[in-house]
Amino acid sequence: MEDIVYKNLDQTSFFQTLQKGTVPSLKKILTEERINTCNIDAGGGLQYNYAALPVDEKIIAALQDLSDEQQLIPKYDALLMGERMNTGEDRMVLHHLTRGDFDRPVEEDGRNLRDFYMSQLEKIRTFTEKIHSGKIAGSSGKKFTDVVQIGIGGSDLGPRALYLALTGCCEQHLHAHFISNVDPDDAATILKGLPLESTLFILVSKSGTTQETLTNQQLVYHYIEEHAPGIDPSGHMIAVTSQSSPLAGSSDFLESFYIDDYIGGRYSSTSAVGGTLLSLCFGYRNFSALLEGAHQADMLARSSGITSNAALLDALIGAYLGNVLGYRVSAILPYSQALVRFPAHLQQLDMESNGKQVNRFGQPVNYHTGPVIFGEPGTNGQHSFYQLLHQGTEKILLQFIGFRTNQQNIDQQIDGFSSRQKLNANLAAQIVAFALGKQDVDPNKNFPGDRPSSLLYGEALTPQSLGALLAHFENKVMFQGFLWNINSFDQEGVQLGKVLAKQILAGTDDPLLKTYASILGL
Amino acid sequence: MEDIVYKNLDQTSFFQTLQKGTVPSLKKILTEERINTCNIDAGGGLQYNYAALPVDEKIIAALQDLSDEQQLIPKYDALLMGERMNTGEDRMVLHHLTRGDFDRPVEEDGRNLRDFYMSQLEKIRTFTEKIHSGKIAGSSGKKFTDVVQIGIGGSDLGPRALYLALTGCCEQHLHAHFISNVDPDDAATILKGLPLESTLFILVSKSGTTQETLTNQQLVYHYIEEHAPGIDPSGHMIAVTSQSSPLAGSSDFLESFYIDDYIGGRYSSTSAVGGTLLSLCFGYRNFSALLEGAHQADMLARSSGITSNAALLDALIGAYLGNVLGYRVSAILPYSQALVRFPAHLQQLDMESNGKQVNRFGQPVNYHTGPVIFGEPGTNGQHSFYQLLHQGTEKILLQFIGFRTNQQNIDQQIDGFSSRQKLNANLAAQIVAFALGKQDVDPNKNFPGDRPSSLLYGEALTPQSLGALLAHFENKVMFQGFLWNINSFDQEGVQLGKVLAKQILAGTDDPLLKTYASILGL
Repeated sequence: MEDIVYKNLDQTSFFQTLQKGTVPSLKKILTEERINTCNIDAGGGLQYNYAALPVDEKIIAALQDLSDEQQLIPKYDALLMGERMNTGEDRMVLHHLTRGDFDRPVEEDGRNLRDFYMSQLEKIRTFTEKIHSGKIAGSSGKKFTDVVQIGIGGSDLGPRALYLALTGCCEQHLHAHFISNVDPDDAATILKGLPLESTLFILVSKSGTTQETLTNQQLVYHYIEEHAPGIDPSGHMIAVTSQSSPLAGSSDFLESFYIDDYIGGRYSSTSAVGGTLLSLCFGYRNFSALLEGAHQADMLARSSGITSNAALLDALIGAYLGNVLGYRVSAILPYSQALVRFPAHLQQLDMESNGKQVNRFGQPVNYHTGPVIFGEPGTNGQHSFYQLLHQGTEKILLQFIGFRTNQQNIDQQIDGFSSRQKLNANLAAQIVAFALGKQDVDPNKNFPGDRPSSLLYGEALTPQSLGALLAHFENKVMFQGFLWNINSFDQEGVQLGKVLAKQILAGTDDPLLKTYASILGL
Repeated sequence: MEDIVYKNLDQTSFFQTLQKGTVPSLKKILTEERINTCNIDAGGGLQYNYAALPVDEKIIAALQDLSDEQQLIPKYDALLMGERMNTGEDRMVLHHLTRGDFDRPVEEDGRNLRDFYMSQLEKIRTFTEKIHSGKIAGSSGKKFTDVVQIGIGGSDLGPRALYLALTGCCEQHLHAHFISNVDPDDAATILKGLPLESTLFILVSKSGTTQETLTNQQLVYHYIEEHAPGIDPSGHMIAVTSQSSPLAGSSDFLESFYIDDYIGGRYSSTSAVGGTLLSLCFGYRNFSALLEGAHQADMLARSSGITSNAALLDALIGAYLGNVLGYRVSAILPYSQALVRFPAHLQQLDMESNGKQVNRFGQPVNYHTGPVIFGEPGTNGQHSFYQLLHQGTEKILLQFIGFRTNQQNIDQQIDGFSSRQKLNANLAAQIVAFALGKQDVDPNKNFPGDRPSSLLYGEALTPQSLGALLAHFENKVMFQGFLWNINSFDQEGVQLGKVLAKQILAGTDDPLLKTYASILGL
């Protein structure tokens, strides 16, 4: 393995090269041939198309050199082999191992960590089979029909996005609900509609100390005691946590599933954090297919040639647009209602990973790092914020996602076309509209064009393609972190607010905290 | 009335003054006294607090001068009195009239337009009472229990956000569902869970030509025919449209409610577009209280003194941060789970209104206009994108929203504090954490601070405070449009995509459209 050197983006020679180059206009370079050739297998049946991004052969060559100079692939390899890439917390980064094997085992104290994740998978498989068969039932004997994930951040956003993405294409054993916010109105709204006798709760907290989640656990206990006094709460609650957490091994739970410190919250959808819920709802087989899709994407992300590595190229072009051309915001635009909360998951994944101002050695960096991420499904977004995307004064990088077929079967021809045809005609039209624009004598109807976008697309949104989609963005974010020389795997920025909130509850003397608390009724 | 002059922001003398000034540090100016005094009544029981925004007396004075020079209040007055402020489409802008009276009636062809909106309100009141009493029932005689709003953009986002905001605090007559996307999986997911015999559908399209909405109407018809052949669809569907639309007066509907061209889609929540749904779900009385709160905010927004006009000051400081200090993104952060989709509504409201590049005369402007808007409820967001807000390299203007009390009553003390106390302690803590930051010897744990935020807060989220909240942002967006000298009331930027999508369906010869369509299975 070559020696790995960590340096800032602005210390690389090829970054200088990129800043000097000229930017090709999409109006000139976008051709039929380009659409057909700028296409990369992204795993799980997905393709990544980058035809409508302003990169020509010269820029691609410079990005390849940059990738090589920043050793993006060797760094990914090192991560896969157990290098402690989460420097601040001195931890390995092993979410890739939750869905597949690589060259050689990652061990700790003689323990094979892939085996550990596999053992939890096996536990999930047997447990969910017992739930589905009714062998494990509610404390009054009723078969479980509903499941509630109690968790926040990574324990909520990823699992929720994936759940919603799969309800239309997988046979459903249990229906899921989510309680995340410490705002008690969140739990109140969910709890009042639940059949408590047949509801299973999953308490998800890696540390076992998350304020919101522990509070909501207690709220649920009290609610069950009050509204279904015959029910034994411990027979209706399972835990997903780490083995070192205060929750581990507690008799408060029907069963516990484990992750470890090497699976970051926002990267935990393919661990027991997502796997328990998704297996309960759709069966272990479907969760397993999701893992397979993710692993395919992980394997493809190992290619050092950037035009055969979708996640790597996506990362490099994103950084080029961000750091050289001034794009500070990225919109995620899935033309699939099932992906309605996928942008919210990517918002955490990207902004919590790369919203950093110091490099991995703790030194301030002199360039922009992670972008702002937002998005809504198309065509809904077209009737909302696309006005600004087409004619506003901001530079926004667009990431479209689309599928050739529906998940469900109520589609039919209306006015000569199916809804699916209308949906995808809109998607195709938007890419071209953004790229080419349109001159009009009325300046208010003028579209400047040259607004770049990429397209991830496939036959259908299935567990497998969803797994690849998830892993694509995880790997993209990781590569951008390497490019910027930052640690994408910690989140020190979330601590200060927690500390001050505790001070307020403890009765702080700080006049500012006290005054804000006071106007908010505390 | 003084003569109104329209000029670009960069032609004003006080904009030059602002660019030369120095920016005060929040670390220096934020005091207990400032928090107590920088507070404005925003209507409906809401207060707007701007203590944690980097404006001192000098800047406030310059912003007042700028407001006067750009004649923001005279322009608002002119709009209220029926000036054709939507220049591109040559239309009046009358959504304020849907919720209250002003100095003198706005007439068109001798018709009082406030009377027209009132007549529709009265029609809504009597119709919903008949639905609630069961006098009007489903075609098989069942009392209506569920209602589905079929609409997209302004016919969806605002009504949906308001519906979700009120479910926790209002007695509920009917439960609402929403079908918006032309993706058939959207309708499929909603329809399969509905009790069709007791479901009422509201078709909402001002023009009566919205592709998505008409397609979904037909999809729903087919679905009813297939799954509930005994039901007469026309007895289960009402329309909200304009009197000039092809839908108006159709016998396909049980009843029709009207708006007109002077109510823009994204400003239509307080018209029949939102009013029919909200009155059906929560009773006319609650919708009426929402209108009252909105009208209070509208009246307060007429004050020409900027420190007694919350919407105006919010607009001016936002533009100051955007155009002078480089803030291009604004995050909406409600510490209220009931406001879960309110940021998505504001995303349309703001980005579709002010995402413009030409002024009201069609000339390109040389400055940034509307910002990118995104947001999620706290504390959820704290576990997602707050890392970037605290330690990222972007400048983001934060708008917090909070309430002293819950909507629902399952809260209780856990570990010594109620969930509400924990929620609001977090909110107070975040404002201070963003403003002051924290020095740490470990640069990775260093918080630079001086990250500005405002706070809209009140006793509780009720129909009245919600109405004021909605109107606050509508008026803020309007004032920013006047500041930038743009037309905030059209949306020409959404047209090109629609035109190209139609070309694809019609079998275009354009090679780019054809190729993208082809890889998407068309």
